[in-house]
Amino acid sequence: MSQMISGGVCAAQGFRAAGLHVGVKTHATWKKDVALIVSDAPCTAAAMFTKNVVKAAPIHVTMDHLAKGGVRAIIANSGNANACAPHGEENAEKMCAAAAKAIGCASEDVLVASTGVIGQTLNVKVIEDGVPELYGLLEHSDEASDAAAHAIMTTDTVKKEFAIEVFIGGQTVHIGGIAKGSGMIHPNMGTMLCFLTTDCAISQEMLTEALHEVVRMTFNRISVDGDTSTNDTCCILANGLAGNPVIAEKNDRYVDFVMALHEVCYLLARSMAKDGEGAKHLITCTVRGAASEEQAETISKSVISSTLTKAAIFGCDANWGRVLCAMGYSGEKFDPEKVDVSFASEAGEILVCQAGRGLSFDEELAKKILTEDEVDIDITMAEGDESCTCWGCDITYDYIKINGDYRT
Amino acid sequence: MSQMISGGVCAAQGFRAAGLHVGVKTHATWKKDVALIVSDAPCTAAAMFTKNVVKAAPIHVTMDHLAKGGVRAIIANSGNANACAPHGEENAEKMCAAAAKAIGCASEDVLVASTGVIGQTLNVKVIEDGVPELYGLLEHSDEASDAAAHAIMTTDTVKKEFAIEVFIGGQTVHIGGIAKGSGMIHPNMGTMLCFLTTDCAISQEMLTEALHEVVRMTFNRISVDGDTSTNDTCCILANGLAGNPVIAEKNDRYVDFVMALHEVCYLLARSMAKDGEGAKHLITCTVRGAASEEQAETISKSVISSTLTKAAIFGCDANWGRVLCAMGYSGEKFDPEKVDVSFASEAGEILVCQAGRGLSFDEELAKKILTEDEVDIDITMAEGDESCTCWGCDITYDYIKINGDYRT
Repeated sequence: MSQMISGGVCAAQGFRAAGLHVGVKTHATWKKDVALIVSDAPCTAAAMFTKNVVKAAPIHVTMDHLAKGGVRAIIANSGNANACAPHGEENAEKMCAAAAKAIGCASEDVLVASTGVIGQTLNVKVIEDGVPELYGLLEHSDEASDAAAHAIMTTDTVKKEFAIEVFIGGQTVHIGGIAKGSGMIHPNMGTMLCFLTTDCAISQEMLTEALHEVVRMTFNRISVDGDTSTNDTCCILANGLAGNPVIAEKNDRYVDFVMALHEVCYLLARSMAKDGEGAKHLITCTVRGAASEEQAETISKSVISSTLTKAAIFGCDANWGRVLCAMGYSGEKFDPEKVDVSFASEAGEILVCQAGRGLSFDEELAKKILTEDEVDIDITMAEGDESCTCWGCDITYDYIKINGDYRT
Repeated sequence: MSQMISGGVCAAQGFRAAGLHVGVKTHATWKKDVALIVSDAPCTAAAMFTKNVVKAAPIHVTMDHLAKGGVRAIIANSGNANACAPHGEENAEKMCAAAAKAIGCASEDVLVASTGVIGQTLNVKVIEDGVPELYGLLEHSDEASDAAAHAIMTTDTVKKEFAIEVFIGGQTVHIGGIAKGSGMIHPNMGTMLCFLTTDCAISQEMLTEALHEVVRMTFNRISVDGDTSTNDTCCILANGLAGNPVIAEKNDRYVDFVMALHEVCYLLARSMAKDGEGAKHLITCTVRGAASEEQAETISKSVISSTLTKAAIFGCDANWGRVLCAMGYSGEKFDPEKVDVSFASEAGEILVCQAGRGLSFDEELAKKILTEDEVDIDITMAEGDESCTCWGCDITYDYIKINGDYRT
């Protein structure tokens, strides 16, 4: 039994949050650019980072602080990625120190993340100067989570914030999160930040395990543009205040926790793909009848990452040949003569390719289906019984516009 | 000693060509859609094809005919890829049969290729009906090669045609080629067709070897959009009429031949990247100081394939952070703290990143450099002494426009 609730990162007991404009974003003084999330009690924490060889400074600092255990807070800024930038780690440490001083904890108890332009020196002074005011704004409320969610946005057009309530071991447990991510998103986490909080009592080991399991099936299955960023961070803090028996092994309660965490991350990931830079369509690609989940995932990712397929969906053009083509260059072996492809949306469903060959279909209906905001590409193969779903978006004139001149 | 000459596929002795509109392209009656290239003498031949699991019917037919040896001609159409289409192989065989009948040779002596939309039945009747007229147009002339080059174009805006003259073993040898390719182009050959002819006397084995060596360094190092097509074909016919001593081993004459073939393929590949769908900029990315040529190639390809880098170049924005980011997710391991990045063009050269950190640079000059049609991204690493150059293009509003509604 679980239900979606409001409150985002403040849904769980003992978590407060705030967001504020301090001046990292110099061109948009009305946009918040620093977020702070604080737990009243020490947390177990787990995190996953970009696989990009070029990692931003805050990732190195966060890795270091995580290794020392006992996390109390996360500080994050938007407007500057603090990646490949002079004094990167020094400035990331300064952000932690400023937050720690306000909270009254050790610098090592604070995690840090940044997102924005790469290669420019972070104006850490404005963050340090702003932290006391930011700290003063901390609240355990819907509004506070909303402010934090806005403070980590870059080219995002909507905030990403979800929370869930679930009964675990007789206690009500909350899991909530905020995320940002719009461009530079690709399987293995593109420029996305995701901060999750829970009052569940769970061991470090099980929390880490749960995060890996869920990220693999959610954030690692979305793609906006095939670019994997330098700054991706997904972390979860668990302060145990729900009072449930501590989850320390893979029992039924662990499964309940993973399912609830999956629900939150699934919604955050999906909303990221839907808000892909310039996107007009959310594309959900499901591959069924694959020999393995890995095969289904590789093929599904290849389809949602295909620039030509993305352009066709933008044009509401049922050009299924590009879907088959993207399956073919995925690197997976399969029999193309046993592939069916359908397009579907709220407007209906239409089979366009059967046994690897084009069908003559109702072009008017196809156009109507693809004109909806959310469209599905459903692929059936005859290799086995496994399946996988990945999420992406179309490529539009606005994507080019947003990214043709992002720095200024 | 070699020099560029005119004549394309008709530059070599004993080759005739023609191009004609027969009606495959129904919406554009002024556009040629079938090409024929015929050698007066039987040829040794070699070919390379797409690595896409989904291969178009003409590729299967051409593979089969090649295996039987003794090639006389190539017939190719644009406007329909004959891929994932009903009666695919039957129709590809019919194209060969029609050409063979006109020429007076066996059907197996004709190779076939197609390019265009995927999944629609090829109107083979109009091709069969048009072949006698096409055959009548065959000429050994610059104009004839030009007609064939135009007949294989789809969204290409310029024809791709080059030829070279070189002395091998005391004889003048000619190598010429025509190619098409504009979208769906990615390392490992995107929708590209390339037909090369030579009068060089060379064994089947050495011709195959030479083609593989050259394609690896030219066509496999360009990317337009990361989509590898179902129809890629690059083939070479050698009729031996130059009268040079047959090249049957890897001697100096083989090296002369490979160098000349490389020159022609390099120019064709580069012109394909430059004419990428909607492209405004040719991007040449050179990686130096790599541990191996493979490492340099992987990193260079990752940079030219990065949608965000392509969008930045479209916006003439010296956003080198995206270059470093694309290097980082290439899958190769290297020290990001030892990477320098420069942008260069006819307007000058500017170092924007040194030892993995941003430099403050003259933004005006950078903009001027990136406004040129052809821009270079020069990367220096400190991993070794190997290097590699790959070619790509920017992504533009026109790319989206062209591909948002390609079928109609």
